[in-house]
Amino acid sequence: MQIDLNGDVGESFGAYQIGHDAALIPILTSANIACGFHAGDPGVMRATVALAREHGTAVGAHPGFPDLVGFGRREMKATPREVEDLVAYQIGALAAIAAAQGVRLSHVKPHGALYNMSARDADLADAIARAIASVDPSLRLFGLPGSKSLEAAQRHNVQVVSEAFADRAYRPDGSLVPRSERGSVIDDEAIVVKRAVAIARERMVIAADGTRVPLDVQTICVHGDTPGAALLASRIRTALSDAGIHVRAPI
Amino acid sequence: MQIDLNGDVGESFGAYQIGHDAALIPILTSANIACGFHAGDPGVMRATVALAREHGTAVGAHPGFPDLVGFGRREMKATPREVEDLVAYQIGALAAIAAAQGVRLSHVKPHGALYNMSARDADLADAIARAIASVDPSLRLFGLPGSKSLEAAQRHNVQVVSEAFADRAYRPDGSLVPRSERGSVIDDEAIVVKRAVAIARERMVIAADGTRVPLDVQTICVHGDTPGAALLASRIRTALSDAGIHVRAPI
Amino acid sequence: MQIDLNGDVGESFGAYQIGHDAALIPILTSANIACGFHAGDPGVMRATVALAREHGTAVGAHPGFPDLVGFGRREMKATPREVEDLVAYQIGALAAIAAAQGVRLSHVKPHGALYNMSARDADLADAIARAIASVDPSLRLFGLPGSKSLEAAQRHNVQVVSEAFADRAYRPDGSLVPRSERGSVIDDEAIVVKRAVAIARERMVIAADGTRVPLDVQTICVHGDTPGAALLASRIRTALSDAGIHVRAPI
Amino acid sequence: MQIDLNGDVGESFGAYQIGHDAALIPILTSANIACGFHAGDPGVMRATVALAREHGTAVGAHPGFPDLVGFGRREMKATPREVEDLVAYQIGALAAIAAAQGVRLSHVKPHGALYNMSARDADLADAIARAIASVDPSLRLFGLPGSKSLEAAQRHNVQVVSEAFADRAYRPDGSLVPRSERGSVIDDEAIVVKRAVAIARERMVIAADGTRVPLDVQTICVHGDTPGAALLASRIRTALSDAGIHVRAPI
Repeated sequence: MQIDLNGDVGESFGAYQIGHDAALIPILTSANIACGFHAGDPGVMRATVALAREHGTAVGAHPGFPDLVGFGRREMKATPREVEDLVAYQIGALAAIAAAQGVRLSHVKPHGALYNMSARDADLADAIARAIASVDPSLRLFGLPGSKSLEAAQRHNVQVVSEAFADRAYRPDGSLVPRSERGSVIDDEAIVVKRAVAIARERMVIAADGTRVPLDVQTICVHGDTPGAALLASRIRTALSDAGIHVRAPI
Repeated sequence: MQIDLNGDVGESFGAYQIGHDAALIPILTSANIACGFHAGDPGVMRATVALAREHGTAVGAHPGFPDLVGFGRREMKATPREVEDLVAYQIGALAAIAAAQGVRLSHVKPHGALYNMSARDADLADAIARAIASVDPSLRLFGLPGSKSLEAAQRHNVQVVSEAFADRAYRPDGSLVPRSERGSVIDDEAIVVKRAVAIARERMVIAADGTRVPLDVQTICVHGDTPGAALLASRIRTALSDAGIHVRAPI
Repeated sequence: MQIDLNGDVGESFGAYQIGHDAALIPILTSANIACGFHAGDPGVMRATVALAREHGTAVGAHPGFPDLVGFGRREMKATPREVEDLVAYQIGALAAIAAAQGVRLSHVKPHGALYNMSARDADLADAIARAIASVDPSLRLFGLPGSKSLEAAQRHNVQVVSEAFADRAYRPDGSLVPRSERGSVIDDEAIVVKRAVAIARERMVIAADGTRVPLDVQTICVHGDTPGAALLASRIRTALSDAGIHVRAPI
Repeated sequence: MQIDLNGDVGESFGAYQIGHDAALIPILTSANIACGFHAGDPGVMRATVALAREHGTAVGAHPGFPDLVGFGRREMKATPREVEDLVAYQIGALAAIAAAQGVRLSHVKPHGALYNMSARDADLADAIARAIASVDPSLRLFGLPGSKSLEAAQRHNVQVVSEAFADRAYRPDGSLVPRSERGSVIDDEAIVVKRAVAIARERMVIAADGTRVPLDVQTICVHGDTPGAALLASRIRTALSDAGIHVRAPI
């Protein structure tokens, strides 16, 4: 029994520090590294790859919209062609920075608004899948189970990795309770840890209404934007190991 | 006897058109494609690679400083580390866009202020050479004969391609007459064409004072920013062929 | 009887030239000058204000989304607060550049996606109106008759200037035929000129189905992105004058 | 006897937090607010002006080079014309954001590389002074005593405010010991506080070699990038008050 722990890192920019990468990356088995559009810069990318390499964490591209001031969280009406090009560009930029350190990319996880839009829009999902398939078909795409993103990847023969969120409430149909709703994010750390173990061991989560929801996932996303979050990630990893689950990047 | 013709292309950006790539690229044997920092964007890069691929023109990265409003022509006091990272980033971005079309990069030519600064500053030259050597040591570096850039590349086992400018006046020591001086740029097209042939056939150029200056170069840089310039490039190419010189990318 | 002719100018950026401002500005009575977010830069803004000043053309701010590569044409999910701040910022930037030449701004016309979104979204419209009312309540807002933009401006005691498009087809209800539909843009110059005169003299336009549609407007927007467009603008201005209509900025 | 305390604030950007503005601004009498080029964005600018307004801190523009990733600290070979335009633009942007809250700007302090370059380059200094004089001649320029910046301002009838640094070592000629030299920054807080009082009360500082150096200054610059720095600023302010010195913005 195995599970991957992924997290978004490398989101600092120039003089601006964000996140706690040095604490988080050793805990992760897959690091999603920002590529300079919504966050990150060439120097931050290089330093983040170095950290991941040191700790044996798999390196993936975390491409986003060209919206630094909005941190890639604002939806933009970009065309599929524009999305395909900007994803290819960002994958390549990180791939080169990684190659310079002898590291090969393992995966791609779109960031923020690009992640959300491509989860529900088949044309954008296709654009991302095409970018991966044409640039490096060995890269896996991370996404929500049942999303358009993963469907498109499969159409393009790109391997997919489904992800779950241990700290998010789910609906009975397996979708996330939107952040705008009360109770969408679970604050109680003990519960979050327990859910992570249930996700990894039983491939299921208890929905807001008590239903058992099967979740066929290979990775759990953890957050690291606060020191507390990195600590929580560490507790999740320990609990998973204690439960006899092998925490490792997908193969 | 052979020579390469290189030119800077792919410098449009979003709604902004610059250069005459469709006219120039078929004439070139090496296309230096902007990578999104001083010019170019992911969509322009993709379209420019497509043009080069169609015409069998070798594709190279043309990385510049992150200064779109200054078109990469303004010197910036970036550290060697910053330069190494931004060159690696830009090479990778273009490499991915090219790979998506089945095209491999052949070379790197720094743009504008980065070209000029690295020609005379050994630390910046080393930074660029390190970026190439670590990302893809098969890429050749284009630069001025005798420059720090080419010296550094050789120290890092990166192959170099020396370039000459048919429309620039030279000093007896083989350096270019600075653009700020009178007569630095040669306007007479017939003379420019003649000089190109002399450079390719005799590996020499007549300096401003009449001296014959040996120029050990493998490529001639042509400009394409005006329709007239693309036409001049075409006349140069024809004259070279007529003189029995094989116009082709370096091997 | 009077009408204003407005046009979007100052959209060049750095080395990139776009539009035909030198030809267009003398024809316009109101110049909408880009403010550095979707287009324009401080130097272009200064030069454009100088042209407008020389020709007695009223100067207005043309603020857009921070999306240079998309030329401000892509919708972005910015919050009303973000829109209010970025509009205030851009108005101020141009106001200072204009003040340095002794010119006061007369109006504001949002650009591209910001124009379209604020025409139909009351919250964004309010944000723009608040920015104007708080920064300089003497500035007029240009917009579509019946739009949320103009309604919001009126709520905030900002004077409005309704605009028509001589080269766009209208529906019987006074709205524009969307660009995605056939026949939305009128190519026949003679017809465009005629419609401009009808708009100015009779405050009406003939809709696609032949209906006479009243158009209570004070300005006509003309385009200048091609040399032909500037010529057309000139023909419109001449026809208006010949019809005894005073072409001047709104007072 | 009076002195001003100025500090650089509003340097956060989008999701990126930097500095401790909420702690620092109440201590300052003059706040230098970043204007979106090297740091800051329209929303951060608005929030920072609001803080300054709440605490009665005078608001000044802190314009920098367009180099967000380098935080405006890297020298760029911009022309005087470019510098004049970008300073005017940034002053205007902040002036509008301030006007929207009923606040008028009081001063301008160039940031980072622009501050340093204009201190020694008369052409850049003239450019900045021209921008101020043409946009709003009531704005004071902050700068180093004896710098080209202040000389230029005086030539353009712009009032100047000389500044000292309590935590920097001085040479006998009144210039700062460069940061690259050992001992250039004074770490001992008690000594820094003492120097601040000496600067304010005796308009002098003890140079590295023990010489008493007269410093004709009206403001002391304090830093706020660490929580400790804001605390130090507070101790300086208290010590000044205890010494009977009126801490207030220049009039």
